[in-house]
Amino acid sequence: MKLLKDRIQQDGNVLSKEVLKVDSFLNHQIDPELMQAIGKEFADRFMDAGITKIVTIESSGIAPSTMAGLYLGVPVIFARKRKSLTLVDDLYTASVRSFTKQETNDISVSKDFLTNEDTVLLIDDFLANGQAALGLLDIVEQAGARLAGVGIVIEKGFQPGGALIREQGIRLESLAIVESLENGQVTFAEEVPSR
Amino acid sequence: MKLLKDRIQQDGNVLSKEVLKVDSFLNHQIDPELMQAIGKEFADRFMDAGITKIVTIESSGIAPSTMAGLYLGVPVIFARKRKSLTLVDDLYTASVRSFTKQETNDISVSKDFLTNEDTVLLIDDFLANGQAALGLLDIVEQAGARLAGVGIVIEKGFQPGGALIREQGIRLESLAIVESLENGQVTFAEEVPSR
Repeated sequence: MKLLKDRIQQDGNVLSKEVLKVDSFLNHQIDPELMQAIGKEFADRFMDAGITKIVTIESSGIAPSTMAGLYLGVPVIFARKRKSLTLVDDLYTASVRSFTKQETNDISVSKDFLTNEDTVLLIDDFLANGQAALGLLDIVEQAGARLAGVGIVIEKGFQPGGALIREQGIRLESLAIVESLENGQVTFAEEVPSR
Repeated sequence: MKLLKDRIQQDGNVLSKEVLKVDSFLNHQIDPELMQAIGKEFADRFMDAGITKIVTIESSGIAPSTMAGLYLGVPVIFARKRKSLTLVDDLYTASVRSFTKQETNDISVSKDFLTNEDTVLLIDDFLANGQAALGLLDIVEQAGARLAGVGIVIEKGFQPGGALIREQGIRLESLAIVESLENGQVTFAEEVPSR
C-alpha cells in the first residue's frame, strides 16, 4: 500500500535494526485519514470473504479495525489484555508473550460476541514475532469460528511471525512488509502474494 | 443523542445500581457505524472551537475519537496507561485512580505530539468519578495547550465526574447522561447545557 509505505518512510523512526517507531500516526498519535485508507484497503482485500466479525487486540489495532469494520459493515471485537471486573465470565483466553516488553499477558474475548457461526478477519497493527496473532488465532479456534484471514498494517518481514502464519496456509495480507531496518533505513519487501 | 440512548436502552446491561455494561457496542465489541455517528456528533458540537488535536485514553476512547478526528480533520492522541520500552522519554504523565478496578495507573502522552500551540478536545467513553478526565486535563495543562472542551459518550450523572469538570468552567458535552440505574432500568437525564 503505497500511501502507507510513503508515510512510514516520511514519519517512521528507526530506533535500531529491530525497532521501527510509528508513534506519530499509528501507535500513539493516530492519523484518522490514514486509518480510513487502511480500513478501506483491508475491506477491499477481504470484501468477498464473507466476514461477519473483525477481531483485533487493544490498543493500536482498534483504529484501523474500526475503519475496516465500517467499510465491511461488521462489528469489531478488541481482545482485552487483562480481565476487568465487569468482564470476567465466559471468556475465550490465550496467553501472549511480548518480546519487546518482556512480559506475558492474557488476552480475552467474551463468548457473547464470537461463535461458531462467525467468519473472522483478524487485524493488528504490527506483525513481528507473531505471538499476538497466534493468541488471536487460538481464540478464533476456541470459538469454532471460521478464519477468513489476517490483515496486518506493518509486517516486520525479518522476524518470524509472517512465516508462522503463512506456513499454516492462512491468508495473510500485510499492507507494508519491512524487509530491513539496517543502517537506519526502512527497506520494504515486495508484497507476498497471499496463499 | 437519540441514536446512542436508544442503543443503550436496547443493548446496555445494568449489572447493579452503579454499573452499566455496554460491551456489545462500545467497550469490547464496537459498532463502527455507531462510532461514526458519535464521531460526527462530537465534530458538529466542536466544529467552531479551533480544535487541533483530540486526546483520549486507551482503549475504549480510541474508536469514537478516531471518527471525531476524521470529521474534524485533526490527529488523535491516545494516552497510554503504562510505559512501553519504545516510549519512555519526554512524556507528560499523570496518575489515574480507577474505582472500578481498584488500581492506579500512570497515563502518559509524548511531548512530541502535544504543545502549547494546540487546542485540545478531550474525548472518553465514560465519565463516572472523573479520574481519567482529570488526568487528561492535567496532561493538557502540562503541555500548555488550550482546552476547548471534553466530549463524553456516556456520563453517569449520579457520580461526581460531571460536576468536577463543569464547576471548573470547562465545556462538557456528554452524548448521553445516565441519571439512574435503579431497578435495572436506565433513566436518562435531560442534556445539561454546556457552560
